[in-house]
Amino acid sequence: METKQKIIVIGAGFGGLSFCKKIDKSKYDVLILDRNNFHSFPPLFYQVASGGLDPTSISFPVRREMRNRKMQGCKFNYGEVKTIDTLTKTVTTEFETIPYDILVIAAGTTNNFFGIENLQQRVCTLKSTSQAIRTRNEILLRLERAAIETDPERRRRLLTFAVIGGGPTGVEVAGALGEMKRYVISREYPTISPDEVKVILIEGSDRLLRTMSESSSADALRDLQQKLMVEVKLNKTMKSYDENGIITFTDGDTIAADTLVWTAGITAEPFKFTGFTPQPRPGARLAVDEYNKVDGTDDIYAIGDISYHEDEVWTRGCPQLAQVAIQQGNRLAENLNNPSKKRAFVYNDKGSMATIGRNHAVVDLHKFHFAGWFAWIVWMAVHLMSLLGMRNKAVVLINWIWAYFTSSSSLRLILRPSRNPSTPINNN
Amino acid sequence: METKQKIIVIGAGFGGLSFCKKIDKSKYDVLILDRNNFHSFPPLFYQVASGGLDPTSISFPVRREMRNRKMQGCKFNYGEVKTIDTLTKTVTTEFETIPYDILVIAAGTTNNFFGIENLQQRVCTLKSTSQAIRTRNEILLRLERAAIETDPERRRRLLTFAVIGGGPTGVEVAGALGEMKRYVISREYPTISPDEVKVILIEGSDRLLRTMSESSSADALRDLQQKLMVEVKLNKTMKSYDENGIITFTDGDTIAADTLVWTAGITAEPFKFTGFTPQPRPGARLAVDEYNKVDGTDDIYAIGDISYHEDEVWTRGCPQLAQVAIQQGNRLAENLNNPSKKRAFVYNDKGSMATIGRNHAVVDLHKFHFAGWFAWIVWMAVHLMSLLGMRNKAVVLINWIWAYFTSSSSLRLILRPSRNPSTPINNN
Repeated sequence: METKQKIIVIGAGFGGLSFCKKIDKSKYDVLILDRNNFHSFPPLFYQVASGGLDPTSISFPVRREMRNRKMQGCKFNYGEVKTIDTLTKTVTTEFETIPYDILVIAAGTTNNFFGIENLQQRVCTLKSTSQAIRTRNEILLRLERAAIETDPERRRRLLTFAVIGGGPTGVEVAGALGEMKRYVISREYPTISPDEVKVILIEGSDRLLRTMSESSSADALRDLQQKLMVEVKLNKTMKSYDENGIITFTDGDTIAADTLVWTAGITAEPFKFTGFTPQPRPGARLAVDEYNKVDGTDDIYAIGDISYHEDEVWTRGCPQLAQVAIQQGNRLAENLNNPSKKRAFVYNDKGSMATIGRNHAVVDLHKFHFAGWFAWIVWMAVHLMSLLGMRNKAVVLINWIWAYFTSSSSLRLILRPSRNPSTPINNN
Repeated sequence: METKQKIIVIGAGFGGLSFCKKIDKSKYDVLILDRNNFHSFPPLFYQVASGGLDPTSISFPVRREMRNRKMQGCKFNYGEVKTIDTLTKTVTTEFETIPYDILVIAAGTTNNFFGIENLQQRVCTLKSTSQAIRTRNEILLRLERAAIETDPERRRRLLTFAVIGGGPTGVEVAGALGEMKRYVISREYPTISPDEVKVILIEGSDRLLRTMSESSSADALRDLQQKLMVEVKLNKTMKSYDENGIITFTDGDTIAADTLVWTAGITAEPFKFTGFTPQPRPGARLAVDEYNKVDGTDDIYAIGDISYHEDEVWTRGCPQLAQVAIQQGNRLAENLNNPSKKRAFVYNDKGSMATIGRNHAVVDLHKFHFAGWFAWIVWMAVHLMSLLGMRNKAVVLINWIWAYFTSSSSLRLILRPSRNPSTPINNN
């Protein structure tokens, strides 16, 4: 019999894992690569940032998941892919160079700062577990500094939290900060008055949750403003953020805020290709055909947030959501399992949802919209189900029940690995 | 009425918190300072390092604890004390300078590398939550590197884990690494054979758990060697550890190990004193009298691991244990509450215990010694009770039950805050 074809999957996210579960391991050798040794859960990063959940409870080791029956036969290597050489058909990580017959790119997206100077160095972001932990640390540091700050001007800057971007993440972060202002400051920071804390959500377009229904946008706006005392500014675009914490907008307005949480833009994870030049697409995404094959290649596929394909329904590409990635991973695996019965990918939109502070969410199912406490329960159930690992489900549920009854959390920890330089791994 | 005296407590550990709970807040203004915004739980650091517990579940925010009824009236400031000026009676952190009438130093201890060159930069340590997280990351990185390493010599170094120091921490880490070798490697690292993994525990004296009973030492030695396949070397003292991972001992022996976990020595947290020079004491501890007053001062007290006092029973000072710190904190508070009825501190030894891998522990109660599964249950109960926070108790219990039935954990995560430089807090 002929030897199996080697498939390399870049990224152990929703897309990569769903592909690995479906692909026929008797037909293919499958190796999954990730720069983290765990699968992470972006929808809940904002709760890590706000101290509502611990990072470990929304992370799941890839090697642990490999023991899942559906994953039997897959291999995992830890490493960050630096270059993809389409001539030699190899990928290179910081540790090794590995040959492939078929490459599946499921590496997702990273922050897009639209070239605004030094922004990356100065702002808090939420595109990875690590970034969420850092954002949590930064927010808590501001509060601790403010608690002992006497200069009114510096105090104001320390206690002003600007969130840029009115998408689901921006709305959820602003809501969580609003909750912190309302429930935590008064109880745990005797030297800070809740009224001193300003949470400002800034969106460039004319409504929040632009990708959702008008009613969801309206609900989110009302709740943030009325229940959570969040200042919302629409139709405002940021121009610069200087080292004194001054945010300047295109219309000339300015805000002084030591903390800026950036959720305003994403761009595809960049790769260095040799022997292939991707065509320009919105958000630097990789253009794929209806079978998720990257245009201009024969053996490279892209799924999830990093891929781009226009069809009649999605004239500007599919939304960058977990659901799309999962469905594309499944379909691609089916197509590779039965090349003769290849079927084009069509996104089956299951709707979208966002949560606004505790006890409240907005849900859009096709034409049907609902909001409030029940929507929040649905939101929790959906997210709990998608979490990997029984232990994680249990811990997250405990945290949520806890927070629901105490509107408090014991996770507001400024926690970092020791700063000693890492013990070098000898390569000689 | 006269104004209250200002007490500053340095350190929110076992000693500092027990003092704050007992001290009469109607008589004194109490401010507690800590360089972390949380109370941490050193007895379980080793389980963080081995991926058995998440760091958040053994950490508890100080401000959250301030809501404890017994703490009402205490204040907390975040900051690391750099200098203590006994002339102006002030302490200075990186943020502020604060005056005190009475100072209580409960800052504990840090690693002692006995001046061995570059050791601090090269080894994994376990004296703080941050260090435990880093140690976990380092251990997991070695395994990931080894999983794809083909050179036999480098492979051997990557898979050799040396633990220096045969005290409770050393024994517990070695045991946890032994468990990892036995239960995890075989299931999650297909390219690594458990036999390739070497765990070596090195102790300078002639027995493990020197501070415990002979039978405890014997039990620990037997279990580590027979159940957990840990190599134990006694009467061996380390001389150097070079950049190629070669450990050299005073007797000339060498071991090549990319991972060295250092538990061999501690020394008091150093402070810069102005107007006062502490007398030299073992482990750089502060000499105190029977009332925990620092020798040569009138208004500075030291409790817990950082304090040193000899009496008839403890001719070389009290052991550096949580129990001692808690009892000293209570006694000092009582003495300050009723200066007329001052009572000298006498340590009431409640015994000591250590755990060796899963399902097994050794316990010494005065003349009474027991070991095995029941000892392990006792060990767990005692530690659960001492953990702050219901949520933490619940999460830790879930983790332990989980691990007990699956001998597995989903916490083997290489998790760090994002490396972007921290957003600067403006001080202009």
